[in-house]
Amino acid sequence: MKQDSAKTPAPWRAKLHEVIFEADTPAGKAFDLALLGVILLSVAAVLLESVTSIREAYGPELRALEWIITILFSIEYALRLICVGRPLRYALSFYGLVDLTAILPTYLSLFVGGAHSLVVIRALRLLRVFRILKLGHFVSEASMLGQALRASRRKILVFLGTVATLVLIIGSLMYLIEGEENGFTSIPQSIYWAIVTLTTVGYGDIAPQTFLGKALASLVMVTGYAIIAVPTGIVTVELGRISGAREISTKACTQCGLEGHDPDAVHCKYCGAEL
Amino acid sequence: MKQDSAKTPAPWRAKLHEVIFEADTPAGKAFDLALLGVILLSVAAVLLESVTSIREAYGPELRALEWIITILFSIEYALRLICVGRPLRYALSFYGLVDLTAILPTYLSLFVGGAHSLVVIRALRLLRVFRILKLGHFVSEASMLGQALRASRRKILVFLGTVATLVLIIGSLMYLIEGEENGFTSIPQSIYWAIVTLTTVGYGDIAPQTFLGKALASLVMVTGYAIIAVPTGIVTVELGRISGAREISTKACTQCGLEGHDPDAVHCKYCGAEL
Amino acid sequence: MKQDSAKTPAPWRAKLHEVIFEADTPAGKAFDLALLGVILLSVAAVLLESVTSIREAYGPELRALEWIITILFSIEYALRLICVGRPLRYALSFYGLVDLTAILPTYLSLFVGGAHSLVVIRALRLLRVFRILKLGHFVSEASMLGQALRASRRKILVFLGTVATLVLIIGSLMYLIEGEENGFTSIPQSIYWAIVTLTTVGYGDIAPQTFLGKALASLVMVTGYAIIAVPTGIVTVELGRISGAREISTKACTQCGLEGHDPDAVHCKYCGAEL
Amino acid sequence: MKQDSAKTPAPWRAKLHEVIFEADTPAGKAFDLALLGVILLSVAAVLLESVTSIREAYGPELRALEWIITILFSIEYALRLICVGRPLRYALSFYGLVDLTAILPTYLSLFVGGAHSLVVIRALRLLRVFRILKLGHFVSEASMLGQALRASRRKILVFLGTVATLVLIIGSLMYLIEGEENGFTSIPQSIYWAIVTLTTVGYGDIAPQTFLGKALASLVMVTGYAIIAVPTGIVTVELGRISGAREISTKACTQCGLEGHDPDAVHCKYCGAEL
Repeated sequence: MKQDSAKTPAPWRAKLHEVIFEADTPAGKAFDLALLGVILLSVAAVLLESVTSIREAYGPELRALEWIITILFSIEYALRLICVGRPLRYALSFYGLVDLTAILPTYLSLFVGGAHSLVVIRALRLLRVFRILKLGHFVSEASMLGQALRASRRKILVFLGTVATLVLIIGSLMYLIEGEENGFTSIPQSIYWAIVTLTTVGYGDIAPQTFLGKALASLVMVTGYAIIAVPTGIVTVELGRISGAREISTKACTQCGLEGHDPDAVHCKYCGAEL
Repeated sequence: MKQDSAKTPAPWRAKLHEVIFEADTPAGKAFDLALLGVILLSVAAVLLESVTSIREAYGPELRALEWIITILFSIEYALRLICVGRPLRYALSFYGLVDLTAILPTYLSLFVGGAHSLVVIRALRLLRVFRILKLGHFVSEASMLGQALRASRRKILVFLGTVATLVLIIGSLMYLIEGEENGFTSIPQSIYWAIVTLTTVGYGDIAPQTFLGKALASLVMVTGYAIIAVPTGIVTVELGRISGAREISTKACTQCGLEGHDPDAVHCKYCGAEL
Repeated sequence: MKQDSAKTPAPWRAKLHEVIFEADTPAGKAFDLALLGVILLSVAAVLLESVTSIREAYGPELRALEWIITILFSIEYALRLICVGRPLRYALSFYGLVDLTAILPTYLSLFVGGAHSLVVIRALRLLRVFRILKLGHFVSEASMLGQALRASRRKILVFLGTVATLVLIIGSLMYLIEGEENGFTSIPQSIYWAIVTLTTVGYGDIAPQTFLGKALASLVMVTGYAIIAVPTGIVTVELGRISGAREISTKACTQCGLEGHDPDAVHCKYCGAEL
Repeated sequence: MKQDSAKTPAPWRAKLHEVIFEADTPAGKAFDLALLGVILLSVAAVLLESVTSIREAYGPELRALEWIITILFSIEYALRLICVGRPLRYALSFYGLVDLTAILPTYLSLFVGGAHSLVVIRALRLLRVFRILKLGHFVSEASMLGQALRASRRKILVFLGTVATLVLIIGSLMYLIEGEENGFTSIPQSIYWAIVTLTTVGYGDIAPQTFLGKALASLVMVTGYAIIAVPTGIVTVELGRISGAREISTKACTQCGLEGHDPDAVHCKYCGAEL
């Protein structure tokens, strides 16, 4: 039956599908913009509620707003389920799960609720922030960036593996050199320090105190400074290849067969024949 | 009438326009250099006045200097209005507004003044620092950098959007993990921490204390370390394309006169004539 | 005799060699995955044991696990020695030494042991972390990254030499400017600060206090910000060349059989025959 | 007379010149290596002497070493003056001045000396660190890096100017927003903070406390994160152009006149004629 309805949907369902899932028609565009506005409003409410002074002053209003937005999102979720051909497939897709995750915590807070579990409820409600992932709906542009990152996935994994091995060894050495009295209380703690240093973040909550420790730290910093070049190089080369590839015509000359012509070329640049 | 004067300006106005707005003639160049000197002097005065010990020692002198510079800039502003063909258009242009903003605060301090509003006045005067934007007059070189940044505008926006979503989610998670007792007093505060960490600034005024927090922070740092590659790659590819474009042959086709041929082209790619 | 055995190994030794040293057969793959699991388990055990609370709670279990892993690695080391044609050559190779280093500390702790030298023993045991270097066995992929780094080795050395000279001079100047009362207690300490600043790590444990010191520090930061471009540029160009090189045509000349022709080549560049 | 001696130097002077100034002959190479060793020893001595505990234990030895090295360098300086054709020109060249600067402070400490001016003397002695600049003698390799930096000089200056204007405006705004009670005691101090933040160094000695200040700081960090792409892009493109240019033969085909052949090409890749 689902299959049938997928093939010949009722006109109102087709219309609904167009409004909710398409972004090209005026109605679809208006719906998307309204959705974007509500998502941003919802995220702002969660952010504001987490500030103690604001929560104390406007707590009830913010909670009311939260319920209104949750009900709006619930209606939207139901409409999405109704108008797609295969509701189960949508419900189990990435965006289906995100849409569900965006409304569940508020409802859960009703059942798990109670005076003493307020903190837990607040925690659950925070998951609503993931609603912002819905923004992904709006990035319809086929992202050249994502393509470059995917193409360099394997090289980046090798790079991250090397960095992981490096911080493991550096962390262990610093634990031996500095010891627990200088803040390097365990190897995991030392590895945390190594990551903070290698990535040039440098909080300064843990810092080497001995001469040997500072010498090793200096080495780590210069290393981190130098190897940041690697992911940059990888992504730059991939981006260059992707945008370069789009710029050269694939037309071959019919006379001499040579390729590599510019997209605006009318004549073969080697033999002069018309393209 | 303005239109007429724009078409046939009086000789002294044409001369004045040349001195003030052009940088190619000796007089124009001298004027520009003098202006640059006064702007730098003015900025230095504002900087020095903000240092408490200097303000106490040289307050009157600095205020006198401020008035002299303000009057000089006022005369310059009036001359600019007089010698341009369309004064209103200049007054509403970006540099017209900057020029006005550079002199207004000092005059305003006369009317808004009074013993108790001294702090506010000082604040208004600080806007004079924007005078340095006038330096933009001197960057006449058609900036290849600006061109590369404009060309990659869309990609950089997608990148910044991704970073914004990322710090929102990371900030919320850290607020849940660390909680208010470890300095993560609200989600906005946590987001601030996430930005400080992701950009590898790392003040250390807020830093994770729990094991889980440190583990997530490590992930964030390595991520930040890796994704800094993206804007770099974008700008590098754009710069490479723009400067590559300049290596295109300057030969023009003798038949059709079109340019833009590759250095290794034998025939005009537009009309097929031999180059 | 070794030479002979290398030429005609007994069947069981050939089989053993295939399992331990090859990664292409099912048995070899299974062995490698098991080895990877044990290495990671071993590293996790060392990390956990360094945390005081975990060591107090699970000390005996972790030490038992350490002995089990050490014995497993010992058996593996013996098998490797048996099945290779030239055991001495393997034992003195890089991985041979790493394999030995991974098992020695635990045995040494038996002889050097005693109630008072526990700290030293723990230190020796930490060397087991180097077992993770065995992971290198699994990076069989011919790494394009390593190739790019090797190719830019000389340029990176010149860069590091320049950085070293720079931090030496900056460190000396800051020692003169700030002096011992502001935390710059010696030139090595000042050099440490210069490295922390130039690499944009910025712990903040030592920071300039005087105006002149802050001015010089600002200069150092902007310099560091600018020269990070150099290693990035070096590696990017090398990576671009290496991946560009792969886009070379795979056509081989039919006359002389040589490869490496450009995609737009019509004639063999070595013998002149048509391609 | 100097001109004459420059034309026909005595044999021993030619030999001396070869030893001191050339690096290709065995004697010249040995001299250079010995010089490098003495420079590094001298720098190490200055570094060690600045550490209080070492100075107290080995003060006299270090001072003796300093005098020995100073006398060695004086002899070397004299020999350089003798064996060059135009001593004055050498003395006023960059390396001539560096060589003089490397020996002067120790002699000056004799005349300026006295029990109470010890600190000043120590300061003068520190200038000896500049001896390390002599290492520049050893970078005979025509540096591709320096060429890339010189080629992108103008672009880097525009970039630095933009950064300077940016930190001036950001610093003034933060001074207004945060004020003196939050550590932003003056505009120069705020500018220092802006540089520390924009370059992602992030000491944390000054950090925004108000909500508005943190919001602006976040903006600054993301900006800094994005614009670090600019110098990287500039240098990468220059490096790519320079190394690309070196890789393509400048030979033109004698038959068809086309260029762009690989350095190892024997035949023209377009017409097949021998190169």
